[in-house]
Amino acid sequence: MAFLLLLADIESKSWVKQLKIHEPQLDLRLWPNTGPVEEIDFVLAWRPPPGELARYPKLRCIASLGAGVDHLLRDPDLPAAVPVTRVVDASMAQSMSEYVVMAVLNWCRHMPRYARQQQERRWQVHVPRQASSTGVGIMGLGQLGGAAARHLVALGFDVAGWSTGPKQIAGVRSYIGEAQLGAFLGRTDILVCLLPLTERTRGILDARLFAGVRPGAYLINCARGEHLQEADLLAALDSGQLAGACLDVFVTEPLPPEHPFWRHPSITVTPHTASLTHPRAVVPRLIENYRRVMAGLAPLDQIDRLRGY
Amino acid sequence: MAFLLLLADIESKSWVKQLKIHEPQLDLRLWPNTGPVEEIDFVLAWRPPPGELARYPKLRCIASLGAGVDHLLRDPDLPAAVPVTRVVDASMAQSMSEYVVMAVLNWCRHMPRYARQQQERRWQVHVPRQASSTGVGIMGLGQLGGAAARHLVALGFDVAGWSTGPKQIAGVRSYIGEAQLGAFLGRTDILVCLLPLTERTRGILDARLFAGVRPGAYLINCARGEHLQEADLLAALDSGQLAGACLDVFVTEPLPPEHPFWRHPSITVTPHTASLTHPRAVVPRLIENYRRVMAGLAPLDQIDRLRGY
Repeated sequence: MAFLLLLADIESKSWVKQLKIHEPQLDLRLWPNTGPVEEIDFVLAWRPPPGELARYPKLRCIASLGAGVDHLLRDPDLPAAVPVTRVVDASMAQSMSEYVVMAVLNWCRHMPRYARQQQERRWQVHVPRQASSTGVGIMGLGQLGGAAARHLVALGFDVAGWSTGPKQIAGVRSYIGEAQLGAFLGRTDILVCLLPLTERTRGILDARLFAGVRPGAYLINCARGEHLQEADLLAALDSGQLAGACLDVFVTEPLPPEHPFWRHPSITVTPHTASLTHPRAVVPRLIENYRRVMAGLAPLDQIDRLRGY
Repeated sequence: MAFLLLLADIESKSWVKQLKIHEPQLDLRLWPNTGPVEEIDFVLAWRPPPGELARYPKLRCIASLGAGVDHLLRDPDLPAAVPVTRVVDASMAQSMSEYVVMAVLNWCRHMPRYARQQQERRWQVHVPRQASSTGVGIMGLGQLGGAAARHLVALGFDVAGWSTGPKQIAGVRSYIGEAQLGAFLGRTDILVCLLPLTERTRGILDARLFAGVRPGAYLINCARGEHLQEADLLAALDSGQLAGACLDVFVTEPLPPEHPFWRHPSITVTPHTASLTHPRAVVPRLIENYRRVMAGLAPLDQIDRLRGY
């Protein structure tokens, strides 16, 4: 009846605190100090080493610490019969929406230019891009993309979304699948990636995609670094087909100091901060799932392994 | 029956174009080439030299090019009997709301810190300030302040407003007058100034006000430079009572190169760009007023000279 906290590269302290608050009797183990592997029933994981989760023969649920599960599904030895859950939390949608709205407004209102002008003590006005005539295209209209879309509609932007199936969001034009990708890109001034990372979406932000958006478009990637072909972005910025990018996620995190993105004048870098998982917000649901599994019930918020999210 | 365009320091070209589109027969004069002063009936003015408007004996309406009229009322020789109008335009409220939302989000999401970290190629995460526990206090809940308040409520912020009279805006706590100023400030983490500039509000952003907000608060001024006691802001930043400021307006514009705000690490400077008046958006209403005045009717959007806005 033990609960394993398996966090490869994040601090466990506030997770332990919240888990103890919500389930004082919890038999909590902190990886790698697992005790006997056959005692582990439930694991809360972030970026486990490949093969690690196959070591627990009695495992009944694998809970992803984030909204994404790519860090679990990339493991070829992930136990096939164990349900996988992800975090579905309104505070993550809120946090992601704030980031997207902020990045969109900073671009429309020329804040990168004004930051450079401030360093040069130069006073020069640039006419803002008007929300109503700025096409924002959101790739991925799930919980996070849908919330961001609603906030941008409320601010008057001309919002469209691209997804695998049709989505009904007031004021948002929905484009579906490969067949409608060209039409979606052709009306996009600001491209926002909020897709799940799957084998189909890996590297999707590439030269072909950038060639389809309106000239001088802006890219916002707050999904996963692996969505982006980094060399293709640099080439599109060089050619002017893209005018800039705001990136929160990278193939290698932390972004290495020698990486060209840090010093590129048209790229804004943030350290994977668009949507943090707050222990206080998500632990109650995790404990609910732990109790369900212990009682023989199926956990909530399961992902579809075939779909990949 | 002549219409005078009197623009001291802004480009007239797009104004002329829009006026001719909407009233092709207009007898348009471009200051200082006015022709005989007794022919001028209507003036559209931005920052006229003091005394200038007293030179036109047949003037029937003075239209401010902006939402503010302080640039007119500061003239002691402003003709007392001539109605003064201001721009009341939804696109200005939209533009101002975008700026305020952007400045609030940039602060909550630590964008000034991340910009510095990017220059140092340093990857370090800072926990965002949560919208629901961030008190935004808006001074001035008129057309512009009210619109900004609604957008911040939609994003989940804890919004209050301070004004001379009570205001009913869903989700916004209303504080009124000098008696409730202390209570308003005491719940404020982010102070937004959108007041009209009058004799009562000149210099209102001073040491006494800064002492009343929550320690480490942030200031956003997008009203008029004269609202702010600049030396008091620098002192409050030095002491840490304020943690930063985003300023769009200044006592002297353009902000002189030697001004300390340009290089202050905690101040973001933008060049009076929060809410621009778009000729295309506001000329139809100006022409409507011109026709009303020519027909002997009172113009719309008149200001109250005693109140000052």
